[in-house]
Amino acid sequence: MKNKNIYWVKFKSNELKSYIDDKTVVVIAVGSCEQHGFHLPLETDTTIGYRLIEEAALLAKEKVLILPPIWVGYSPHHMDFCGSITLRQATFSNFVLDICVSLDAHKIKNILIINSHGGNVGILRTVVDELGASHNIYPILVTYYNYFSEIIQKAQRSQKGGMGHAGELETSLQLYLSPDLVDTENLMGGIIEAKKYFQPGMFTNKRIHQYRPFSHYSDIGVIGEPRAALKSTGKELFQIMVQEFSYLFDDIANGLAN
Amino acid sequence: MKNKNIYWVKFKSNELKSYIDDKTVVVIAVGSCEQHGFHLPLETDTTIGYRLIEEAALLAKEKVLILPPIWVGYSPHHMDFCGSITLRQATFSNFVLDICVSLDAHKIKNILIINSHGGNVGILRTVVDELGASHNIYPILVTYYNYFSEIIQKAQRSQKGGMGHAGELETSLQLYLSPDLVDTENLMGGIIEAKKYFQPGMFTNKRIHQYRPFSHYSDIGVIGEPRAALKSTGKELFQIMVQEFSYLFDDIANGLAN
Amino acid sequence: MKNKNIYWVKFKSNELKSYIDDKTVVVIAVGSCEQHGFHLPLETDTTIGYRLIEEAALLAKEKVLILPPIWVGYSPHHMDFCGSITLRQATFSNFVLDICVSLDAHKIKNILIINSHGGNVGILRTVVDELGASHNIYPILVTYYNYFSEIIQKAQRSQKGGMGHAGELETSLQLYLSPDLVDTENLMGGIIEAKKYFQPGMFTNKRIHQYRPFSHYSDIGVIGEPRAALKSTGKELFQIMVQEFSYLFDDIANGLAN
Amino acid sequence: MKNKNIYWVKFKSNELKSYIDDKTVVVIAVGSCEQHGFHLPLETDTTIGYRLIEEAALLAKEKVLILPPIWVGYSPHHMDFCGSITLRQATFSNFVLDICVSLDAHKIKNILIINSHGGNVGILRTVVDELGASHNIYPILVTYYNYFSEIIQKAQRSQKGGMGHAGELETSLQLYLSPDLVDTENLMGGIIEAKKYFQPGMFTNKRIHQYRPFSHYSDIGVIGEPRAALKSTGKELFQIMVQEFSYLFDDIANGLAN
Amino acid sequence: MKNKNIYWVKFKSNELKSYIDDKTVVVIAVGSCEQHGFHLPLETDTTIGYRLIEEAALLAKEKVLILPPIWVGYSPHHMDFCGSITLRQATFSNFVLDICVSLDAHKIKNILIINSHGGNVGILRTVVDELGASHNIYPILVTYYNYFSEIIQKAQRSQKGGMGHAGELETSLQLYLSPDLVDTENLMGGIIEAKKYFQPGMFTNKRIHQYRPFSHYSDIGVIGEPRAALKSTGKELFQIMVQEFSYLFDDIANGLAN
Amino acid sequence: MKNKNIYWVKFKSNELKSYIDDKTVVVIAVGSCEQHGFHLPLETDTTIGYRLIEEAALLAKEKVLILPPIWVGYSPHHMDFCGSITLRQATFSNFVLDICVSLDAHKIKNILIINSHGGNVGILRTVVDELGASHNIYPILVTYYNYFSEIIQKAQRSQKGGMGHAGELETSLQLYLSPDLVDTENLMGGIIEAKKYFQPGMFTNKRIHQYRPFSHYSDIGVIGEPRAALKSTGKELFQIMVQEFSYLFDDIANGLAN
Repeated sequence: MKNKNIYWVKFKSNELKSYIDDKTVVVIAVGSCEQHGFHLPLETDTTIGYRLIEEAALLAKEKVLILPPIWVGYSPHHMDFCGSITLRQATFSNFVLDICVSLDAHKIKNILIINSHGGNVGILRTVVDELGASHNIYPILVTYYNYFSEIIQKAQRSQKGGMGHAGELETSLQLYLSPDLVDTENLMGGIIEAKKYFQPGMFTNKRIHQYRPFSHYSDIGVIGEPRAALKSTGKELFQIMVQEFSYLFDDIANGLAN
Repeated sequence: MKNKNIYWVKFKSNELKSYIDDKTVVVIAVGSCEQHGFHLPLETDTTIGYRLIEEAALLAKEKVLILPPIWVGYSPHHMDFCGSITLRQATFSNFVLDICVSLDAHKIKNILIINSHGGNVGILRTVVDELGASHNIYPILVTYYNYFSEIIQKAQRSQKGGMGHAGELETSLQLYLSPDLVDTENLMGGIIEAKKYFQPGMFTNKRIHQYRPFSHYSDIGVIGEPRAALKSTGKELFQIMVQEFSYLFDDIANGLAN
Repeated sequence: MKNKNIYWVKFKSNELKSYIDDKTVVVIAVGSCEQHGFHLPLETDTTIGYRLIEEAALLAKEKVLILPPIWVGYSPHHMDFCGSITLRQATFSNFVLDICVSLDAHKIKNILIINSHGGNVGILRTVVDELGASHNIYPILVTYYNYFSEIIQKAQRSQKGGMGHAGELETSLQLYLSPDLVDTENLMGGIIEAKKYFQPGMFTNKRIHQYRPFSHYSDIGVIGEPRAALKSTGKELFQIMVQEFSYLFDDIANGLAN
Repeated sequence: MKNKNIYWVKFKSNELKSYIDDKTVVVIAVGSCEQHGFHLPLETDTTIGYRLIEEAALLAKEKVLILPPIWVGYSPHHMDFCGSITLRQATFSNFVLDICVSLDAHKIKNILIINSHGGNVGILRTVVDELGASHNIYPILVTYYNYFSEIIQKAQRSQKGGMGHAGELETSLQLYLSPDLVDTENLMGGIIEAKKYFQPGMFTNKRIHQYRPFSHYSDIGVIGEPRAALKSTGKELFQIMVQEFSYLFDDIANGLAN
Repeated sequence: MKNKNIYWVKFKSNELKSYIDDKTVVVIAVGSCEQHGFHLPLETDTTIGYRLIEEAALLAKEKVLILPPIWVGYSPHHMDFCGSITLRQATFSNFVLDICVSLDAHKIKNILIINSHGGNVGILRTVVDELGASHNIYPILVTYYNYFSEIIQKAQRSQKGGMGHAGELETSLQLYLSPDLVDTENLMGGIIEAKKYFQPGMFTNKRIHQYRPFSHYSDIGVIGEPRAALKSTGKELFQIMVQEFSYLFDDIANGLAN
Repeated sequence: MKNKNIYWVKFKSNELKSYIDDKTVVVIAVGSCEQHGFHLPLETDTTIGYRLIEEAALLAKEKVLILPPIWVGYSPHHMDFCGSITLRQATFSNFVLDICVSLDAHKIKNILIINSHGGNVGILRTVVDELGASHNIYPILVTYYNYFSEIIQKAQRSQKGGMGHAGELETSLQLYLSPDLVDTENLMGGIIEAKKYFQPGMFTNKRIHQYRPFSHYSDIGVIGEPRAALKSTGKELFQIMVQEFSYLFDDIANGLAN
């Protein structure tokens, strides 16, 4: 199965035309370019999302094609930290929208957007709504850590709040995916104290939504506990998620996700 | 306490200037104008949200002011049904944004947006982010049925999925708030069968986000079980929510929601 | 006749579908939220416009439906005074435009926009033009004090210029419509001296158009003579305008306004 | 006086810098390119407006500079007739706005916009408001036939409604200004019957505003009575208007129009 | 041939409708209003472009119509110098686009845009692309000095770099076209030293593109050698270019430029 | 030197902050996702541009960082061919602009944009102009085949016009860079006959600019002669270009490109 071509951009035009059909699923990984503390690279979100869809596409039984990653998203709250790059909201939403419109022009019916950055969630939802409401294009949007929240939480070793930005989850995954890029000498961060209306971490109930520059929370840029991360956890979670995503891809191809 | 003026627009300009201070909370109810089946009026979302903040503002100990409701939101998925009115995404987000910018011009520090329509969630989140990122304005956004999800689910009589659009929850609340406008002879609807990736209802885990015109789900425009609604449930829930919101308003005034 | 339902948003979707026909007139009151001196509330424009269409709709023989008021308009020139809220031009025009497009989607042929704020005039005209030129939608636009300029001027007790912003006319109407909200102890203001190219007041010949922040004219926010206002004048004018608007509504329903 | 340079664009940069001061008035004629019946050229509005400011600038005592005319405006209602060119609303308003912003960058304090096309009125008003509200630039806007409505009506020979589009007024002026371009063999048109809510002509009370494509009114593209036009009337009116505009220009230079 | 009407705006609507056919070419001169040193007027680009198309249209055998010039373009880099006026990019591109869309509405198939300002090149190219890609309108874009680069360079007397902004070429042309507006006492300027990546002048190989305010290069606003200019060169070049453009116009009319 | 980190996104935030200084050059490769005939993959432009800057960055003596490639550009003219993806103009320009604005926020002074797609040229030029005019950011823009036109033309084996889209140049480069992705069994295409105003190929004098869908020129999507391509030419050209670009990068770092 490893030999199948899953990369849209590596096809020749006529070759692609012969390959795709009504069932073909095209997957877009949407990440970010933003600070992840002193120990993880700027590309962390993009790497996790893209590697997930790459492996899942190879594993899927049906024809699944992936686009190059959208490596920059909506990250104004990280701009106080060096290296972060952000798009404005309209730029970001139009970028995703135009790509989907182009795919639709080539009769792709099944578009799946896999997001790996929290800051992108609201905008991507508006893009999906707009595509449906004004263009009759119906992508499916998934944010990976929400999709796998049960699986991920089962693997959590740190306390509540330990899996926030650049915390246990992302560090574990990167220890497996990009070991050379993790600075294990600088695993700093910390769990932020919960307040009445603020619960740190990815899986806490967010009853209110507020915008805060990330420097409001942490000088280091980390919310969570990177010291709890394990390469073995990263490997295990990654493999489960790849397997599950391959099922999702096949289900979408077979019309089971409508 | 009933005598206090909670209506921003009923103040005279100089009178308002004397009244407001750094703690004052301004609350905006954002609803919709969209079909709610054969038994509930188009204004249902707006009524629920606005009545909640009206009563809670009266109950609050601190100075709380409310604006007239934003009675139309983002509802393209309901346009197949007569009476629904929708704004385009940019119109809607700019409308909310401009109001917040104006409030900020008068030194209002505490802005609270209470949303009562699912279709608005993504856009309102982008507005709050944009206000923070580009205008240094930091409103708090709450969607009432998410904020009160535990309380509401405890009161649920119908099966899972019974509290969807125009279902048990909204019908109960309207039986209490607008009894003359509920057509109890036409309590039609029904719980949609769950699928692998689709769970009906407000409180089910939405692992994937898709846009569908509402007519895709229901000819009547209802997802849920309005026949399970009770006026007594509506009253009880409404009173609890008012009480809780009044605490939230006071907490915001006292800087406890940051 | 008082029993007829004139409120679009209080209809159920299917009920509305049965009720409306090709003759049905939908009326939108467009007001503002802006300072009106020390004696009138921020909502003054909105109250006047909305109460006019509410009563006229009840009086009309034909089916007339009204939307909730657009309670905020274009008021940057009042932002120096506390409480004023303004939309940007594009936000305001798109808001009105989207509502009209939604009405058109439900086959409403007769849309009437009743404006009660001078600052809205230019923009509303461009909206009406754009709806016709690009959407084949043909609303009728009326600014009430221009529509009734002859009637109003006959009732004027103050000197020329006495009926400017928050002056004799608006104060008289509010003494009748919102007596509890008028601060009769603070009826301040004054007629501004005419200059070669500037004539104060609503009905003077405006040969040139200029933008000035309102604080340029008045520290109190009033141009005109509120002390000349009488509740009896307000009542009389209001009743005549209601009667005349009811005729206009019926004429529109019967195709006499084309 | 004929020798003074009134043309902004014919100055050298350094020469202009030495010439202008705080009093200098810059005048912009805004016209249209649209059908004017079978007898008048497309440029009619532009010609009238531009020739007026050209002669008035020469006559004025103070330093007055004119820009080349804006020869195309907002004319979608004329697009059914060959030759008409229209801008979209935003294009038109941004064009005027950008020019004013550029003038302001060179410290020009007195900007006067002379409009000669009805379709432009609403948009130009919004531009002037926006320049004031967002840019602290305060142009004066004049539509010539409104500014001179008394003078023009005194000269009217035709019945009420005879001075509509391409009617007595514009034909008289063009007989004087562009005699070779008036097709006196084809002076067709006619006064449209007044209806309850529609009064033809430039100076009738427009109680309601509606958009209609011009072909709705006339197959020829004329509302009014071109047969009543006289070259002598055109000459007389033009000369009075030039004289009066020169006074206006000087008054603006001397701060008398604020 | 001098008697033929080449001016679109001087036609009557019905007259134009009879005159134009599928072959008719409409030409638009796009210039600028920007400083041209101490010796040339602000209108220089516009004059050159417009006079070229005016004479060429008269000379052409086929039906060629010209629009009034677009006398302002994209010139932010000249705003440090008095008199320069600039449009924002979107204003400028929409202005040109709207005009082409209007021409297309009247079935004009052959649109030719003659540009005479370097700052406009990028934007005009995007406009032409957008018209083709989204409107099925296919104008031809020519920047005159590139079109005639061989001819012009043959006539060059100055060193390399002498034909930059307000240099030998433009001064020669204006000496012929607008002798009264050239200040021959102030022919200042100078050839800027070439650097590794910067070659001055119009016809040098621009390997890299950078934006610089013009004041970065020259206090006088000139790059090039106006002292090398000759009226005789201007005349000769102008006449050749007129002749060549008339051939181009005819070729376009006859479908030879596709 | 191979060990130096040239990838912006692989840095940790604090690590990057320590690494960059005033001289650091950030390079962005802008490509496309569009058909390249039957023999080259959709990613061809992106591959060439990105591989060039990757190798040149490694070779450069100064600190040079590269961003992930912008793998989609402006390609509406290729949308008739399967696989092509295009952005709208504003989406594309805002995407590039936002990235540059973010880099500027981190004090990067030297931004270099390397473009490898003809369709992007006009838009990228407007972006660079806008960044300079409105943001005081001054990137350098290079389109590689123009920058190296002399070197490339020397290596040309095919006739004039043989180096057009997917022709000799791109095929030679891809034979070297992506041999497995070139379908050497399907090297179809052909040189298009020159017409009076149309010269095929990258290096011919384009006197006029027109937009045409690519299917207008070729059913296969190729203009040029891929059969003339040689892997050895690709290798040689690539190595020279890498060397030259490394010099350019160093020169920019040392302030020699201003």
